[in-house]
Amino acid sequence: MKQKSTEHSKLKIIPLGGLEQIGMNITAFEYEDSIIVVDCGLSFPEDDMLGIDLVIPDITYLKENMDKVKGFFITHGHEDHIGAIPYVLKELNVPIYATKLTIGIIDHKLKEHNMLTKVKRKVVKYGQHINLGNFRVEFIKTNHSIQDAAALAIYSPAGIVVHTGDFKVDYTPVFGDTIDLARLGELGKKGVLALMCDSTNAERPGFTMSEKSVGKTFDNLFAEHKNSRIIIATFASNVDRVQQIINSAYKYGRKVVVEGRSMVNIISTATELGYLDIPENTLIDIEQLKNYPDEQTVLITTGSQGESMAALSRMASGMHKKIAIKPKDTIIFSSHPIPGNEKAVSNVINELFMKGANVIFQDAHVSGHACREDIKLIYSLVRPKYAIPVHGEYRHLMAQASIAEELGYDKDHIFILSSGDVLELDEEDAKVTGHVHVGNVMVDGLGVGDVGNIVLRDRQHLAEEGIIIVVLTLEAGSGQVLAGPDIVSRGFVYVRGSESLMDEAKQVLDVTMQQMMDKNVTDWGKIKSEIKDALGEFVWKETKRRPMIIPIIMEV
Amino acid sequence: MKQKSTEHSKLKIIPLGGLEQIGMNITAFEYEDSIIVVDCGLSFPEDDMLGIDLVIPDITYLKENMDKVKGFFITHGHEDHIGAIPYVLKELNVPIYATKLTIGIIDHKLKEHNMLTKVKRKVVKYGQHINLGNFRVEFIKTNHSIQDAAALAIYSPAGIVVHTGDFKVDYTPVFGDTIDLARLGELGKKGVLALMCDSTNAERPGFTMSEKSVGKTFDNLFAEHKNSRIIIATFASNVDRVQQIINSAYKYGRKVVVEGRSMVNIISTATELGYLDIPENTLIDIEQLKNYPDEQTVLITTGSQGESMAALSRMASGMHKKIAIKPKDTIIFSSHPIPGNEKAVSNVINELFMKGANVIFQDAHVSGHACREDIKLIYSLVRPKYAIPVHGEYRHLMAQASIAEELGYDKDHIFILSSGDVLELDEEDAKVTGHVHVGNVMVDGLGVGDVGNIVLRDRQHLAEEGIIIVVLTLEAGSGQVLAGPDIVSRGFVYVRGSESLMDEAKQVLDVTMQQMMDKNVTDWGKIKSEIKDALGEFVWKETKRRPMIIPIIMEV
Repeated sequence: MKQKSTEHSKLKIIPLGGLEQIGMNITAFEYEDSIIVVDCGLSFPEDDMLGIDLVIPDITYLKENMDKVKGFFITHGHEDHIGAIPYVLKELNVPIYATKLTIGIIDHKLKEHNMLTKVKRKVVKYGQHINLGNFRVEFIKTNHSIQDAAALAIYSPAGIVVHTGDFKVDYTPVFGDTIDLARLGELGKKGVLALMCDSTNAERPGFTMSEKSVGKTFDNLFAEHKNSRIIIATFASNVDRVQQIINSAYKYGRKVVVEGRSMVNIISTATELGYLDIPENTLIDIEQLKNYPDEQTVLITTGSQGESMAALSRMASGMHKKIAIKPKDTIIFSSHPIPGNEKAVSNVINELFMKGANVIFQDAHVSGHACREDIKLIYSLVRPKYAIPVHGEYRHLMAQASIAEELGYDKDHIFILSSGDVLELDEEDAKVTGHVHVGNVMVDGLGVGDVGNIVLRDRQHLAEEGIIIVVLTLEAGSGQVLAGPDIVSRGFVYVRGSESLMDEAKQVLDVTMQQMMDKNVTDWGKIKSEIKDALGEFVWKETKRRPMIIPIIMEV
Repeated sequence: MKQKSTEHSKLKIIPLGGLEQIGMNITAFEYEDSIIVVDCGLSFPEDDMLGIDLVIPDITYLKENMDKVKGFFITHGHEDHIGAIPYVLKELNVPIYATKLTIGIIDHKLKEHNMLTKVKRKVVKYGQHINLGNFRVEFIKTNHSIQDAAALAIYSPAGIVVHTGDFKVDYTPVFGDTIDLARLGELGKKGVLALMCDSTNAERPGFTMSEKSVGKTFDNLFAEHKNSRIIIATFASNVDRVQQIINSAYKYGRKVVVEGRSMVNIISTATELGYLDIPENTLIDIEQLKNYPDEQTVLITTGSQGESMAALSRMASGMHKKIAIKPKDTIIFSSHPIPGNEKAVSNVINELFMKGANVIFQDAHVSGHACREDIKLIYSLVRPKYAIPVHGEYRHLMAQASIAEELGYDKDHIFILSSGDVLELDEEDAKVTGHVHVGNVMVDGLGVGDVGNIVLRDRQHLAEEGIIIVVLTLEAGSGQVLAGPDIVSRGFVYVRGSESLMDEAKQVLDVTMQQMMDKNVTDWGKIKSEIKDALGEFVWKETKRRPMIIPIIMEV
């Protein structure tokens, strides 16, 4: 650690995303001339972001302070923590630090973007400390619904900040060790300035169940359904879940097929790096499925969230090229619907039932996030001076704040931040002293940030009301109408009565144009606005709809 | 009842909607020359029905058999059972039979559509029998989340069908009597041909709690939050819920304000008809609110489903003209999100928290539908020969079928129907013998059925990718380009780089048109398709997007 910092500098914590939502996690820590960044995630588009593929954080602040930025520390390999890396690291040439599996997953992502050689990645072990500028960062073992998750202890001259990442407390993890509670306690004894703790499940009472409990459920379900093929949908990245399915399959003498691109990818990465232990001759190719009786096979598949293009959804709708659902199949959703996906999941369940399958959608899942009592445990170990709930919508952050209050924290020691807030803190004091530019950058096709609010507003309008295009050719000079007005519509009424409607609309426009001619109006702006008004009024009167109206004038 | 029926006729049960979904309930019962219809509901648009306001059933079958249709029997006043009445009764001139409150709500709806004088309505009492053609229909008291709900015993020469409507078993109802279990038992002893039973909660174990339990919760919440204003959001039609809020308010000396159009309407109808008992000087106008201290007021409001235009959503976003959320307000969601509304509800909760309010969104609601054990009770009383689960998505119907199997029904005595199926049945036999035309008629603005699948597909395309319009003026005869090609786009890339993209696109089109000219192509169809192909390919290459491309040619 450099020694040039003065006693008077404070640490700045600047979340650039990830508050107000579960997604797009990215937080800058700044001390004098050093910035380090924790996580670099994406979020998935909201319902009103029509046609958008994904959303990444606006990193204007980092680009403006490019000289200060020393590196990225990634807590774990979920999309909301790593998904923006290929976009952000195009603009910032700094190294990434993470645990082995996390780096493995990042590598795969960088490869897809042809960026593997352009970004420096460093694998870090639990307990290891990384010195970078004014900071030292220690990786601490945690448990989560993906392996190799880490909490970070961020040492700055102003004090230590503990960032939990996403975590749960699992005393009987499927792979590796329990969260390093002892180290968190040791840091608590040293004195921690601030705790940034996962709020996802802060509304839920009690404790989060061990991942291992799902393994027992699988054993029971395999015993109960031993006469049918079993298909299990779960999150691709939950390698422990996949391990437990494989364990049950092996125990009950079933071969395992893995289906769905992201599932295949993660399993191959995890196997390569030693995070998944597959007994020999257990995994078979999907093409070999036909060589085994149904009751000796298990499929592990993507699509547990009802995603329309995922493997399970394609099976359910009969669009999957290689797997057809059979009446005796047992299909297990090892997942809960993420808020917003309930209807899509329910549609897939209905389709599977209609194909005669037996669908099990309860009790074969546990959460990867700490509940209220677990969060209290972490606070009691770390004993931070300041509480900064992170990772959640406002309601979740508030729920964690209520936990901190229950534990005796004063309100002025709890900080519910907004993305962009600059929280300055040291042992003396903590307060929000400013706000930097943040925002959503929308990615649509190849375009990053080229779809803005105007485009989205237009899409919304087009989606709800359709479009009417009016074209008109005028004579240069005289402004006389040579051809048109012609009317073309899309996404507007179609089936019944719309022909006569369009005929009448044309008459309305003919009258409007005649009035323009009579008054010698030649200004195109004026003509267009008259066309819009006259047609808009007519259509509203007739249909109570307001399609987008686009007048186009040509001149010859 | 007429006596002309022969021994050989069977009863036909033809659901015209309401299966495969929770919504749009309408079922025809046909015996020889008589048809009666149970319920006439709407459904709300699915996510892919862009811009659609509501969906009503296609009643082609009823129109084709107009002479046979004798009347409509409505089980209760929820939109998914009455919402299509103003549309359907425009086409069928027959009377409607229902209980008093249900008719009151229907009257209000007919008034809005200027149809009150055109539709005959008859108020029916529990225990009353209506003779209509070959049918006799008895109304039987049930409990539900709206008052005056009825089950129907439908007597036909082929046997008795019991249709539960939507129901729960409430031993301690807030208003009126418990469901008439004794009458169901009596019918069971007489012999019931088929039971059509509500499946909504057939996946949920146990029993549904009494509505009265929510009253206790309100009392506790009022006692606990006696220093703040209380705002409670619930379903407008749940008059018992409103009654219990008013009871707690009265007990704790608070004035009550009702806000939201549908809430005001139902409360005025219910009060007028004697279904709501409001102590004098309890209800005040929203304008009077300022005359009372916060802790002496309660607001009952619409918006419990996060509907963007409802009163609570407008309060949450600061758009409500008369109510501003204050930091000390206690806001209670007396509701659960209906599947699909989870995100919208969560957004409103976040906004309310951000305004500093205390939001309570758990434990202040019970369902209006029977759970598994309640359904078993009904089967055990009615003891039907055939089980026909209704009111639910396929998964819910299947869940009720599994209950029937548990109770010992053979699979071939359980019928999971699809909308349009014709189930013919009598004491000897029951089977699906045909299928009639059914479908969704979309209502959009004033238009009923004029938005079809092509329009929806266009809207989807426009929503996701936007539109590029290419206009071109050709010389009549020669086919020479006089003006254009000009390009206009909406909902397509906008912010960055799109100007040069459009310039290049124009060059592509200039080249294409030159090639057409060189080859003397004058066929407009050919020219348009070349423009679409060339521009589509260019745009895909540059952006990986496929906007809708509309070439428009004019001739002068």
